[in-house]
Amino acid sequence: MIQKKKYAKAAKIIPEGYKSANQFFESVFQDKEMIWMGQNTNELHIGHNEEVHKAMIDCIESDEYCKYPPPEGFTELQSLILKDLDLEDLSIYINAGATESLYLAMNAVLSDTDNVITPDPGYLIIDNFASRFAGEVRAVKIYSEENNYKLTPKLVRENMDENTRVILLIDPLNPLGSSYTEEEIKEFAEIAKENDLFLLHDITYRDFAQKHTLAAKYAPDNTITCYSFSKIFGMAGLRLGAIVSTQEVIDVVKSIIINDVGTSMVAQAGAIAALKTKPQWIDRVKDTTFENQKIIKEAVDQCEGVFLPVYPSSGNMMGIDLSGAGIDSEDMSQYLIDRKVFTRQGSYTSNTFGHKYLRVSYSIDPEKVKVFAREFVLAVEALRTK
Amino acid sequence: MIQKKKYAKAAKIIPEGYKSANQFFESVFQDKEMIWMGQNTNELHIGHNEEVHKAMIDCIESDEYCKYPPPEGFTELQSLILKDLDLEDLSIYINAGATESLYLAMNAVLSDTDNVITPDPGYLIIDNFASRFAGEVRAVKIYSEENNYKLTPKLVRENMDENTRVILLIDPLNPLGSSYTEEEIKEFAEIAKENDLFLLHDITYRDFAQKHTLAAKYAPDNTITCYSFSKIFGMAGLRLGAIVSTQEVIDVVKSIIINDVGTSMVAQAGAIAALKTKPQWIDRVKDTTFENQKIIKEAVDQCEGVFLPVYPSSGNMMGIDLSGAGIDSEDMSQYLIDRKVFTRQGSYTSNTFGHKYLRVSYSIDPEKVKVFAREFVLAVEALRTK
Ligand SMILES: Cc1ncc(COP(=O)(O)O)c(C=O)c1O
Ligand SMILES: Cc1ncc(COP(=O)(O)O)c(C=O)c1O
Repeated sequence: MIQKKKYAKAAKIIPEGYKSANQFFESVFQDKEMIWMGQNTNELHIGHNEEVHKAMIDCIESDEYCKYPPPEGFTELQSLILKDLDLEDLSIYINAGATESLYLAMNAVLSDTDNVITPDPGYLIIDNFASRFAGEVRAVKIYSEENNYKLTPKLVRENMDENTRVILLIDPLNPLGSSYTEEEIKEFAEIAKENDLFLLHDITYRDFAQKHTLAAKYAPDNTITCYSFSKIFGMAGLRLGAIVSTQEVIDVVKSIIINDVGTSMVAQAGAIAALKTKPQWIDRVKDTTFENQKIIKEAVDQCEGVFLPVYPSSGNMMGIDLSGAGIDSEDMSQYLIDRKVFTRQGSYTSNTFGHKYLRVSYSIDPEKVKVFAREFVLAVEALRTK
Repeated sequence: MIQKKKYAKAAKIIPEGYKSANQFFESVFQDKEMIWMGQNTNELHIGHNEEVHKAMIDCIESDEYCKYPPPEGFTELQSLILKDLDLEDLSIYINAGATESLYLAMNAVLSDTDNVITPDPGYLIIDNFASRFAGEVRAVKIYSEENNYKLTPKLVRENMDENTRVILLIDPLNPLGSSYTEEEIKEFAEIAKENDLFLLHDITYRDFAQKHTLAAKYAPDNTITCYSFSKIFGMAGLRLGAIVSTQEVIDVVKSIIINDVGTSMVAQAGAIAALKTKPQWIDRVKDTTFENQKIIKEAVDQCEGVFLPVYPSSGNMMGIDLSGAGIDSEDMSQYLIDRKVFTRQGSYTSNTFGHKYLRVSYSIDPEKVKVFAREFVLAVEALRTK
């Protein structure tokens, strides 16, 4: 009776033994012993979130949540985010995660004669969103040392044309953790201004980076920045994010908004507290995450034919290339999940290169990273075909 | 640089003295003395929500919210909703409110040669969503006694043609509180089956009705039901709802989903507790809401030229027609908000008839409804021009 719409393939991988992706998630979710390295989430707040907890619990106990929140978000939260980014001259709309922000951004600026340039590997739901509104999605292959495993200005210039409307910068990049230098961001800003197109700057993992430059600083009129509370703030299950851009773009976003009655009040209360307390916890979370990479690096270095495309990673995740050992990443993630370590096969973030690499995230207790490291070395030997 | 998209007008009314709708909402929201009759929310849970609070607070204190929820919703919640509706053979997708459900439903089944039939008055964001995906939105004028202030099967037959793809049944109807009899629902089911079209059954206010029939009972293959936790459950600020339909429709919804990493875990935890405890509180909430109508009716009956189009209402809101007293509803809502009673001018729910009626919702403490009743009678005399 109705047609399923055909958009760019977004990953929904169902490991063996589960009848749906939902059932898989629910069961790993409920397994308290599972080591959680498969979703780039952040457990390092656990046990250290008193003020965030208190703000959310107050919102619940006061029954404030019986009303609708202001549709565009609480002014206090809007200001705190803009201040966090030092982008106080720009406009903002709060919504249910970077995911919703990315969808709204694509819907706001694209039409079907446009094309969009994205990185492969990348975060595939963004390609899917682009394909809903643009005529063409140009997923540029970036998986090589020559490109430093990122969508470089050079690659963009080679792949763009007069119909290019959006360049997607996932920075740091999910899955590999590559990030841009200030010079590269300046070059992207020039490309955007010269060609009257938009940089869609997905900064979901920004705060894990040792150094990070906002494209909006150099091309404020040509950048849409997508912000998330899921990662550094450890609030993935609360679904909160924001879109930051010019007033002109935000006005268009308002004309295509979906949830016109606002975004979770409890999440917003928590986010306000998280931003206010950020100076107290950011170094601990960031440093532990960064240090955890060394544990993984040591394990990888023991395995012949296995390497880290990007090290150190600027995110809370990295790719581990298994191809030199003749191991398919799907076999590896299946092997590890049977040993209660949840990681992701590369096909979750690339249809082209996904078989080569495993993605692991590590903003978790270092003791758990050590368990992963031990299991990983054993797994490589068990699965090796080369 | 970019074009604002032109869709059916959705209401965003800014009362005098505020610079944006957001600023208005935020300030009424933060005013603890404001009597809240402007958003069809439900305060009757306040102080009686122990188990719902506990479930949400547990979710926070356990830090479960650091992970992503399963994308389609927790199985337990899915089952509880289907059981609540006695529609256990159908499929379900949990999302951020009936609002998101309505958007996804329109996106799933419409293409640009289709038309959609909607009621005027109605809930205008739904017309706006329809206009994003359909070629034409036929807003049918229903504001008359002859039609019992609802989109009747007769009106639908008169206005539909071979391109009609969706009939929107808001039931009970925001703003007037009219609802359908079982006979009418059966007739709609026949229309849908005969013409291979969808009934979009928005049952946001279902549980306030004395009697209510689900279209999905009579036309399961041709109905998309949109469910909300904002009203009877008093959880508007948590943003939770669901779309219920055939597996075929839900599969299409999955192909156009936006938030592919799920919906607020805290909200889902609260919703599970709310559904489990529903037998304990439903009569109190429903009966108090229903009784509150009498207080309003008495006040209205004292005012020459003022009447209730639908009484009793099946929702937690009703329209009060002021046209016979020569009062514009916008003046009335402005007058009342200055006296700390938040109601809605009719233009929020009808571009055609909005000047005639004020919308008031009353799932609040009866003492507050009495304050409204007193202020309203004074207001009519102060503003009367006829
Ligand atoms: C690059 C990227 N953008 C956006 C998201 C989604 O973020 P949110 O949880 O805020 O919707 C993710 C989640 O993994 C991501 O990796
Ligand atoms: C008819 C109708 N449908 C849907 C909604 C939105 O519901 P939710 O809060 O679940 O998004 C409303 C809110 O007022 C409404 O009146």
